[in-house]
Amino acid sequence: LITERVLSNKARNVLILLADDGGFELGAYGNKICQTPNIDALARRGLLFNNAFNSVSSCSTSRAALLTGTPSHQSGMYGLHHGVHHFNAFDNLTSLPNLLRQNGVYTGIIGKKHVGPDDVFRFDYEQTERNNHIDQVGRNITHIKLLARDFLANANRDNKSFFLYVGFHDPHRCGHSEPQYGAFCERFGSGEPGMGTIPDWAPWYYQWDEVQLPYHVQDTEAARRDIAAQYTTMSRLDQGVGLILKELEAAGHKEDTLVIYTSDNGIPFPGGRTNLHEAGVRAPLLVASPEPGARRNQASYAMASQLDLMPTVLDWFGISTERAEDNEVTHGDEPKSLLPILIKEPAYSEAEAVFASQTHHEVTMYYPMRAVRTRRYKLLHNLHHAMPFPIDQDLYVSPTFQDILNRTRSKRPLPWYKTLRQYYYRPQWELYDLRRDPAELNNLHGKPSLTEVEAELRARLQSWQRRTRDPWRCAPAGVLDHDQCFALDNGLAD
Amino acid sequence: LITERVLSNKARNVLILLADDGGFELGAYGNKICQTPNIDALARRGLLFNNAFNSVSSCSTSRAALLTGTPSHQSGMYGLHHGVHHFNAFDNLTSLPNLLRQNGVYTGIIGKKHVGPDDVFRFDYEQTERNNHIDQVGRNITHIKLLARDFLANANRDNKSFFLYVGFHDPHRCGHSEPQYGAFCERFGSGEPGMGTIPDWAPWYYQWDEVQLPYHVQDTEAARRDIAAQYTTMSRLDQGVGLILKELEAAGHKEDTLVIYTSDNGIPFPGGRTNLHEAGVRAPLLVASPEPGARRNQASYAMASQLDLMPTVLDWFGISTERAEDNEVTHGDEPKSLLPILIKEPAYSEAEAVFASQTHHEVTMYYPMRAVRTRRYKLLHNLHHAMPFPIDQDLYVSPTFQDILNRTRSKRPLPWYKTLRQYYYRPQWELYDLRRDPAELNNLHGKPSLTEVEAELRARLQSWQRRTRDPWRCAPAGVLDHDQCFALDNGLAD
Ligand SMILES: [Ca+2]
Ligand SMILES: [Ca+2]
Ligand SMILES: [Mg+2]
Ligand SMILES: [Mg+2]
Repeated sequence: LITERVLSNKARNVLILLADDGGFELGAYGNKICQTPNIDALARRGLLFNNAFNSVSSCSTSRAALLTGTPSHQSGMYGLHHGVHHFNAFDNLTSLPNLLRQNGVYTGIIGKKHVGPDDVFRFDYEQTERNNHIDQVGRNITHIKLLARDFLANANRDNKSFFLYVGFHDPHRCGHSEPQYGAFCERFGSGEPGMGTIPDWAPWYYQWDEVQLPYHVQDTEAARRDIAAQYTTMSRLDQGVGLILKELEAAGHKEDTLVIYTSDNGIPFPGGRTNLHEAGVRAPLLVASPEPGARRNQASYAMASQLDLMPTVLDWFGISTERAEDNEVTHGDEPKSLLPILIKEPAYSEAEAVFASQTHHEVTMYYPMRAVRTRRYKLLHNLHHAMPFPIDQDLYVSPTFQDILNRTRSKRPLPWYKTLRQYYYRPQWELYDLRRDPAELNNLHGKPSLTEVEAELRARLQSWQRRTRDPWRCAPAGVLDHDQCFALDNGLAD
Repeated sequence: LITERVLSNKARNVLILLADDGGFELGAYGNKICQTPNIDALARRGLLFNNAFNSVSSCSTSRAALLTGTPSHQSGMYGLHHGVHHFNAFDNLTSLPNLLRQNGVYTGIIGKKHVGPDDVFRFDYEQTERNNHIDQVGRNITHIKLLARDFLANANRDNKSFFLYVGFHDPHRCGHSEPQYGAFCERFGSGEPGMGTIPDWAPWYYQWDEVQLPYHVQDTEAARRDIAAQYTTMSRLDQGVGLILKELEAAGHKEDTLVIYTSDNGIPFPGGRTNLHEAGVRAPLLVASPEPGARRNQASYAMASQLDLMPTVLDWFGISTERAEDNEVTHGDEPKSLLPILIKEPAYSEAEAVFASQTHHEVTMYYPMRAVRTRRYKLLHNLHHAMPFPIDQDLYVSPTFQDILNRTRSKRPLPWYKTLRQYYYRPQWELYDLRRDPAELNNLHGKPSLTEVEAELRARLQSWQRRTRDPWRCAPAGVLDHDQCFALDNGLAD
């Protein structure tokens, strides 16, 4: 990367508000039950993306992708960072905070970091799970507010442009790590006996029979109660967003800061997080620009990938990066700045695509998948399809998954969009017409009328994998040697 | 670990000579064709182990296991360290070099290191692939000799006990990385045109029709020529061992140094490296002690694991380590010092066992396996058995594997002990009676007469996995939550 600073004299800042496993439980995205007035207000101040996607459906990898603009197979962050999982990005990777720091921007992270090694992701100001309890910096919105105030005061004192990344831990589950606070930590700081109090949080409670059920969650009381708990946690996240935006305004930066709200991966329900199906990678994305002429209270239908966020932020700061000449034709499939879309909706194009790549979540959960998604189609390659889809610890203990297990075991009715067996065992290739089949239930792989469509998608996916140096680009039927694939004759070619 | 130094005043040193993918192509182990006079001479000076085993069949993981006494699933080094594979041991792991350094021993590594992070495996003297070309420090035996001389001079100058670990790169293949030198780099430094000259090496050449064929390699000209090349490379390794031992003697340390020769994993042929079958994990192990009373020119039939080498070396230096109290009963399955065996052959016991654990080799080669091996039986658990066994890049391009592929494709005769399909597709559980079936061809899993034997082995393996905190201890049919396994109902329980 050759970088060059062309920062204007005017202060320009960026605030990223990142939800953890957050989905579309947002008024702005049409949820009529879950109340999120602060996030909705942000949406009205900016542009709401209706076709935004994670490049991977797992926390650490997604955060590394967001902060480096590289897909999971290229960052080295093949799975979770913490504990026994122990994945780390490559040491020579260029990250957004490092690049911004080098260019004189004051950088800060408050909340969940979940990436490493430290040298690759270095912020000037760090208040994360590394030096705090994750709940204090990720869920205690009063504490988060005060940290943001502290960071902004530093930036003002030094008269510096800033980049602040707030990694909320809400609405992540906590049934595996801290079940005493409820499935979604919805009781943490709620003021109930023994739960502590977060002064700035007024919890909102929901009736289980009134929640708006996502298509990929079974319609049972257990699952609905799980969603009701998630909604309550959303009220903490939403009020946290409101507090930070107030701090931003109080620090005098409402009119010079690009504000981005998004989430690292889909909701922690079957079909969501860890999946590359829509519920796993479709992400809320709100971008509010203070620039005159920026679109406000509008929706965009442009295809956007979280891999685009690094170029977007660099573009905002006027930092241009040039990649060394590449021999490959680019196809327009590279990450790109979203700033032009904030001004004007691009002409509709059927050709736009986003890509996703996932290998591990937990280190034991090896299930490599690669996907290309155009406006209409998704082609998904399950490289280890002969093994069952893995279930993470956090999902496993959830009321929703336990309900699926119990109903399946006892042969009680399960009003779900799949059977457990279908969920576990997936074909090597999945092709969906998302216009007709948004729930991805009708696999069109191999359908004669779509032969050409599928071949094109496959070539495009293969080309992306090659260009992004995917070590898995020959798997599962071949071996990679000097940039070529050689057949294994192991029965998995098709 | 609580450590305590009780080093005697007498200088005591250790020299480890580690072959890379070395097997039993050694006169001392009964190979009548491959000539290894220097290693044979070492065997005559010490004890030859006939039942020594790697704890994993992959370079980096095996070296990390050897240097920390922990199995691959406990070290964090789940696969190869270099390049895109990028596995690293946990940062809080205690390694032999670090512990020895803390206890005042002068530590050195010459040759292949292949483990990380740096802080966990720190030697005072490092001449490795990190600061040299691997061939120069791993295959150029003249250069290696001079480095050893340099190290020993330092130790003498400072009058310090030393630990020297020489990681030969021979007889590793190089068809993937440096094909210009031949399949086994047997032409590197051979004096042939364009190959350079290693002054101290007189290459030995072999007739392909005279090599001694291992049971797991097909009897074809292509495979035999591959083995002949391996033998030539063995002559470089053997002469390198001779040079180092001469340096040791010249430095005055023949009579106060424990010398250990072994290899990190099985030979790079089908059935060997990356397998937990015998050819993948059975290791040559020679230990020559200068102590009066030490057994010389003898063979031991005691079961020995490379996990025992760290306690052995610590025992030699008189460094005692006490593990914090563990709640589990120990079963005698912990790593143990081999020094008592050097004095006296232990009473024969059917109960002895060694364990093996492998997850990745290359990062794309996920094929977790866990095994327990007693004198008579081996129980092997293939956690991802529904997927084909993966083939590494290095093996794939080898003449032997290409020959198997080509003969299978063209339906020509393949005089091999398996079919390619059998090699790829393995059952979840394999149980062998090694006394009757050393080639592991007759899977006795589920055989009624062995129900009790199998149940005992399985309980013992499970207990070892639990005690060594194996993250995979519930896989593939369960999820681990707070040290318990919970069923997934994914069809893989049995
Ligand atoms: Ca997440
Ligand atoms: Ca090796
Ligand atoms: Mg690294
Ligand atoms: Mg680490």
